[in-house]
Amino acid sequence: MDTSLPRIAITMGDPAGVGPELCLRALAERSVHAQCVPIVIGDAAVLRRCAEETGLPAPPLIISDHELPHAHAPAVLDLGAIALGDFLPGTISAATGRASFAYVERAIDAALAGHVAAMTTAPLNKEALHLAGILFPGHTEILATRTRATRSCMMQYSEEITCTFVTVHVCYREVHALLTRERILEVIELTTEGLRRILGRAPKIVVCGLNPHAGEHGLFGEREEERIIQPAIEAARALGHQVEGPIPPDTAFLPARRRETDAFVCMYHDQGHIPLKALAFDSAVNTTLGLPIIRTSVDHGTALDLAWQGKANPGSLFAALQLAARLAS
Amino acid sequence: MDTSLPRIAITMGDPAGVGPELCLRALAERSVHAQCVPIVIGDAAVLRRCAEETGLPAPPLIISDHELPHAHAPAVLDLGAIALGDFLPGTISAATGRASFAYVERAIDAALAGHVAAMTTAPLNKEALHLAGILFPGHTEILATRTRATRSCMMQYSEEITCTFVTVHVCYREVHALLTRERILEVIELTTEGLRRILGRAPKIVVCGLNPHAGEHGLFGEREEERIIQPAIEAARALGHQVEGPIPPDTAFLPARRRETDAFVCMYHDQGHIPLKALAFDSAVNTTLGLPIIRTSVDHGTALDLAWQGKANPGSLFAALQLAARLAS
Repeated sequence: MDTSLPRIAITMGDPAGVGPELCLRALAERSVHAQCVPIVIGDAAVLRRCAEETGLPAPPLIISDHELPHAHAPAVLDLGAIALGDFLPGTISAATGRASFAYVERAIDAALAGHVAAMTTAPLNKEALHLAGILFPGHTEILATRTRATRSCMMQYSEEITCTFVTVHVCYREVHALLTRERILEVIELTTEGLRRILGRAPKIVVCGLNPHAGEHGLFGEREEERIIQPAIEAARALGHQVEGPIPPDTAFLPARRRETDAFVCMYHDQGHIPLKALAFDSAVNTTLGLPIIRTSVDHGTALDLAWQGKANPGSLFAALQLAARLAS
Repeated sequence: MDTSLPRIAITMGDPAGVGPELCLRALAERSVHAQCVPIVIGDAAVLRRCAEETGLPAPPLIISDHELPHAHAPAVLDLGAIALGDFLPGTISAATGRASFAYVERAIDAALAGHVAAMTTAPLNKEALHLAGILFPGHTEILATRTRATRSCMMQYSEEITCTFVTVHVCYREVHALLTRERILEVIELTTEGLRRILGRAPKIVVCGLNPHAGEHGLFGEREEERIIQPAIEAARALGHQVEGPIPPDTAFLPARRRETDAFVCMYHDQGHIPLKALAFDSAVNTTLGLPIIRTSVDHGTALDLAWQGKANPGSLFAALQLAARLAS
């Protein structure tokens, strides 16, 4: 047992989704043990039942709250947040929404207290959260609120392509109203800080436009590029950051530009997620920049149609744990 | 000389851009001659000067209007639309906007008259068009107006990924107001007709959502997916088309789904152009579906910074000619 490895909390995610089986895989995976001490924050009874149904190895060790700060081996912190009779695998319910939220809250508190070096999250189901009356649109917003972060943003990191986001879980038609010079500058700064930690040097950043052809000098749109995005880029350059843009969104991700760019600052969810999934579909890791704690996440959803069959691909979770360990050390 | 090959008009595009040198390359290219008889509709003096400056072969043959219906060898139909002293390579001007528009008009008329079997367009510069008082946002709209097509849509075709577009050259914030059940159904039908011609069988079509996660059952957006997109898909299915969706825009383009999908119906320009350029960056061919004539186009712009240096890659023009020849035969 290597006591120098970072202890990383893994939230179990929605019990009805693929989270439990992915956690079982992480607890049993040697390549994970070589990089960190994985502690699943979830429900031991759910994990045991999931192990029975899928044939995956049962959880190795169950610990309680006071043992967490000293845990040096893969384990489950059992919250007892949901009973086996309260949900059906593959089915959305308020009960699983409530439980999955409880895992996230506990993991944030453990990270803030320094009991774990980082946290990695399995997928929530937003509909289940909403049924439970929990109206956060996603992890990023829960984390920002509970850690009282005044600024944060989502980053999707992979070797192939890395994107950060000015807006994330908002509907298409609300995006333009949320774009401000200040927010874009903030995301450029968070991106620079976050990537400096990962790369060990100042990153090269490309900022995308909003409109087709980045507005083509005002031909499309209301000059959002000239009025909002360009001034943010100039302010970032004045602070010494290496930033280019605004680049037409479709040419931003051409192979030649990808090779010389460390991260793309995207104006909206699909502007970055489309190329991320097309190019790095199971290797991208979601991390939240600007928090007082380290947090990474899988880049997929609960995959209810696949849940509890032992078939879900753990690649994204393993990659998320690897990045969390790298950021924590 | 193979007189069975289709005669294809190539519009010279903006004289200040990369169009002239690409046309010179097509006129001289054996792989092009094997598939069609290329007739550049442009200015002979501009092409000659461009050949001198770039070292590319000069245009082989200059023809006039009455020779066009009988042309069986690569040639230039000389419109005399711009004088050499009226523009500078690499510089936007009203003069080049006017000339490039004249080439497109003449090519459309030649195609409507049956003097050419198809037309392939080199890039326009929209700012130059606007300086000339020509307010069309792009080729697609010029073609629809001049051919009196009552319905049309853009298709970007490649072996790797093919997309059609419900909206194209409109700014980000105007898109949602342009989405209607009728327009989406129209694009699904045009896509099916167009691909049946190319593939020789009924295509499999995926329709993308508008919002992140396709609205996640109403969590994001104003249920555009349920109110507008889903009913269009159902209407298309009732007509016998093979259509899936609405699919979350980011997962639509995952490798596994790309392999089993013939075309993606996209709600807005960058939803399709981002994956197209990321995955098929110089092989995608732009074609306009629903016209009474066959029209394909390069998928890049005028590249003013590269113009008249002989360095522009003709791959997209050659691919566009190839698809035009395939559609014409």
